[in-house]
Amino acid sequence: MIPRVNLITLAVADLAVSRAFYERLGWKAKAASNPYVAFFDLNGLILSLYGKDALAGDTGIADAKAGCVTMAINLESQDAVDAAMAEAMGAGATLLTAPHDTPWGGYVGYFADPDGHPWELACVPMFPFDANGRLILD
Amino acid sequence: MIPRVNLITLAVADLAVSRAFYERLGWKAKAASNPYVAFFDLNGLILSLYGKDALAGDTGIADAKAGCVTMAINLESQDAVDAAMAEAMGAGATLLTAPHDTPWGGYVGYFADPDGHPWELACVPMFPFDANGRLILD
Repeated sequence: MIPRVNLITLAVADLAVSRAFYERLGWKAKAASNPYVAFFDLNGLILSLYGKDALAGDTGIADAKAGCVTMAINLESQDAVDAAMAEAMGAGATLLTAPHDTPWGGYVGYFADPDGHPWELACVPMFPFDANGRLILD
Repeated sequence: MIPRVNLITLAVADLAVSRAFYERLGWKAKAASNPYVAFFDLNGLILSLYGKDALAGDTGIADAKAGCVTMAINLESQDAVDAAMAEAMGAGATLLTAPHDTPWGGYVGYFADPDGHPWELACVPMFPFDANGRLILD
């Protein structure tokens, strides 16, 4: 499993309220943000704010309250996502959602570590990488 | 507030169990790890595994269960920590613990965003930065 985190996703109760808070810190939301998600580039790590109900749907975590956090490892291909998920299963991870195509064009699966921390494995063709394996978002 | 995340800390029930899980993914714990915390370098972001009770003590979050996550912005000076905390308060953050000296040599405070996501502001002299503001851990 490649050792990197590309995105941290924070489950929020009200996206507009939470986005406004981070903007008051002086952080600028990326152009890739929309009414459903806000992205901030934190020195090569993408912070994303996402509705708690939407996150519950994506992860299959029934109680994905505001306060839930997921970490994503983005990979270059669907095969790489499948291989990483197999590696996680081999290490004793719990499957949350098997890798699958999403309506927005990604290929995504989730596993949980021994304490239930959710990790996303994702191939998102519209999010390119820089030379250091970090995401480039407009 | 400088837009960066230096560490993600995952609250764990049993550090040995959780460390072994991440090592089975093929990730190598840094030499700076010890019986109380395990550090992994994820492409310039430090992932730390830390006991849930210790995290509860540090953050003042009474219900810091396994599954709780904190994000840290490391800064170069205690003054920078104080200034960043003042900025967070001005943006409407909730104070969790005011910046203070710790027994292990850091200067640390925590605030929460509108959904309760905890952020740590830290000056840790023994953790140097690289040219890109990322931590260098042995």
